[in-house]
Amino acid sequence: MSLIEPRTLKGFRDYPPALMIPRERMLETARRVFRSYGFAPIDTPALEYAEILTGKGGEESDRLIYQFKDHGGRDVALRFDLTVPFARFAAQHIGQLGTPFKRYHMGPVWRGENTAHGRYREFWQCDFDTIGTHANAADIEIALVIHDLMTSLGFERFSIRINNRLVLNGLLENIGLADRAVPLLRALDKLPKIGADKVCDEMQRTAGVTADQARQILALAALQGDNESVLNRLEAEYGSNARTAEGIRRLRELLAVATEAGIPRDRLTIDLAICRGLDYYTGTIYETFRLDKTDIGNVCSSGRYGNLASHYTKQQLPGVGASLGLDRLLAAMEELGMIRDVSTPAPVLIVQFDPARLGAYQNLARRLRGFGIGTEVYPEAKKIGAQLQYAERRGFSLALIAGSEEFAQRVWKVKHLATRTETAVDDAEVVEFVRSRLT
Amino acid sequence: MSLIEPRTLKGFRDYPPALMIPRERMLETARRVFRSYGFAPIDTPALEYAEILTGKGGEESDRLIYQFKDHGGRDVALRFDLTVPFARFAAQHIGQLGTPFKRYHMGPVWRGENTAHGRYREFWQCDFDTIGTHANAADIEIALVIHDLMTSLGFERFSIRINNRLVLNGLLENIGLADRAVPLLRALDKLPKIGADKVCDEMQRTAGVTADQARQILALAALQGDNESVLNRLEAEYGSNARTAEGIRRLRELLAVATEAGIPRDRLTIDLAICRGLDYYTGTIYETFRLDKTDIGNVCSSGRYGNLASHYTKQQLPGVGASLGLDRLLAAMEELGMIRDVSTPAPVLIVQFDPARLGAYQNLARRLRGFGIGTEVYPEAKKIGAQLQYAERRGFSLALIAGSEEFAQRVWKVKHLATRTETAVDDAEVVEFVRSRLT
Repeated sequence: MSLIEPRTLKGFRDYPPALMIPRERMLETARRVFRSYGFAPIDTPALEYAEILTGKGGEESDRLIYQFKDHGGRDVALRFDLTVPFARFAAQHIGQLGTPFKRYHMGPVWRGENTAHGRYREFWQCDFDTIGTHANAADIEIALVIHDLMTSLGFERFSIRINNRLVLNGLLENIGLADRAVPLLRALDKLPKIGADKVCDEMQRTAGVTADQARQILALAALQGDNESVLNRLEAEYGSNARTAEGIRRLRELLAVATEAGIPRDRLTIDLAICRGLDYYTGTIYETFRLDKTDIGNVCSSGRYGNLASHYTKQQLPGVGASLGLDRLLAAMEELGMIRDVSTPAPVLIVQFDPARLGAYQNLARRLRGFGIGTEVYPEAKKIGAQLQYAERRGFSLALIAGSEEFAQRVWKVKHLATRTETAVDDAEVVEFVRSRLT
Repeated sequence: MSLIEPRTLKGFRDYPPALMIPRERMLETARRVFRSYGFAPIDTPALEYAEILTGKGGEESDRLIYQFKDHGGRDVALRFDLTVPFARFAAQHIGQLGTPFKRYHMGPVWRGENTAHGRYREFWQCDFDTIGTHANAADIEIALVIHDLMTSLGFERFSIRINNRLVLNGLLENIGLADRAVPLLRALDKLPKIGADKVCDEMQRTAGVTADQARQILALAALQGDNESVLNRLEAEYGSNARTAEGIRRLRELLAVATEAGIPRDRLTIDLAICRGLDYYTGTIYETFRLDKTDIGNVCSSGRYGNLASHYTKQQLPGVGASLGLDRLLAAMEELGMIRDVSTPAPVLIVQFDPARLGAYQNLARRLRGFGIGTEVYPEAKKIGAQLQYAERRGFSLALIAGSEEFAQRVWKVKHLATRTETAVDDAEVVEFVRSRLT
């Protein structure tokens, strides 16, 4: 038989244990946080009717979609994000599910991207949203969830920057530019990358505004200081517009409730320069940055939108949601040394010294597992050196060894692999001893 | 804008929270058990080169594979199981990963099945294997894992039936039919469905054996009794063949180690009639049945194989593994009333009685979440009746209510939704009170 070369497609990758263990841990942490707020899990198929997915993110996005005909000749496509399937899902089921509806959704998506920039064609997304309510309470909760996600993942130094589209929309209304919001937002979104002068140029070029108008918008975005003083100046300078005033009220309420709920004040920062380029967003905007590693970019962004599922239903479904940047966070955790390089989920290896004692080895393993301590029994009675090498290479913490001498004395040799120190421990005390060495 | 009908493809389904919550719980339980034995998670792409996947399960299987050309004109296909991608993965990475290698893999697979029999075209598989060792210790461990999976999922009455191909292979060798093993196994596999007479006919027809030879094979499969007596009779009647004797030795060792490890004896049963129809298997065979619901079929089957990845590498990779039947187990749990019909992962709803108190509501919610108690704050200050109706419909256990009177007295009204009883609880004691009511 001629062999087939074992390889993955360009732009795709395998996840061996060393990559998969931290990914699973991250997904579990996120699930725990979502559930603690009452967000419920959903899933949707990887494949949808092509008409459901295409035309939702513009032409360029459509070109990236994997499309084909299925066995029944239907035009089908692989989902390229979790937002469009959620919109379809909501339109289809919201009558039965009722509102408000809070969901999280984690899963792979597929895009036929150019792989030149290290992009993968299959990657995971992790979204959460509350739909069916205009209430600011839902927006506030999203900020609390982002905060808890970051701390639960082990990050301490981060900043959630917050804005509200209503603030800028009020200004645009005042200066008669409400109908130019789309190109203006798109230009403003580039501020951190290209600077104020180039944004000013672009606004004049693409939105047809005057230099003075562009400068007025940039002046709003440039308001800086502590949250209280920014809001006070906003109110004094722009608060006469009802829309802007409502934006300010919502931002104030968000900060007040978060503080009363117990979120440290310095974790939330009003930042009038963040706007997210899409006109899809209508209210609160969030971006989350790590302060110790700003070059990694925004790791959790989100916003309030006016209508989720307009392509599929006449029912208005406002909502607010966010997307956790799993790959960026994993990269950050790797750089910060927050991920141990292990390829076993179990900390304890029981060496198979004497094959006739397999029952005794598995008996101790079960006792340890009963206390939540992952324990592997090496399957073969190889030389101890080879078994210990296996244990070190995979990243086990402890190796337990017993031969006829130890069985006669009813003890286990507990070997701490990092220090290569060994302790003889009584069989009756070994579970407690192992527990104490692992915490 | 004309609306697009929101619908899923034929053979595909959405998972709303009421379906997804039990699925996630089941996957988490399985993960916990796998990890406790040192099985490590891996993942592989949904899409592979078509040549990797096709031709591995016969023509009929190939017809079910979703195949198409990607943006680069490559012939690609969606995985139809997790075994073939694992074989490709092992061939590609085993040099780096080293052996023995223990992995679990959970994820969706796709088959363009006929949907007439309620089959879905997208479903989850959940596989675990140890590869790179011939040791019986690995086979024994698989039985222990199956046992712990079943008990951790909440099943008490089940039976893991065990056989070893070596037993039958020895007999076939003795009566000169070793080269007819494939059609004979395929016929024998139908024994529970069509009975001994029809199996006997089929053996004669498809394997070209005599009626007497077929009866000899069926006589072996019919040996019954407690484990010890079955093994003793096997030994006495067939033990002279070396292959059969090795099969018996392995079965004996499995039972002895499992018992010493602490598995109740009645959970493991030698059953010489189970054989699994594929010639892929070479040693231990397992099938798992629920005793209180036998019509649901085998919920966890597995076996030892001689060579996992022969299509992709010359390296011999023997192994032993199993597949957990997630959908069958979920169906069983539903029938047994083991799944509460809830669509929220959080047990506590805090009613939004006074919108000015949102900070206080979120403050209590955070205190409860800190103790691992999922707590949702209703986002709008609707009428209490509407909020309680929402809570009941979703399956919350407790609703917490406080208005100006309660805030003045520093108490919370804790409403037990199933009984509609209400207790006023001091704010300082409310976390402890809620905890006690939920356990």
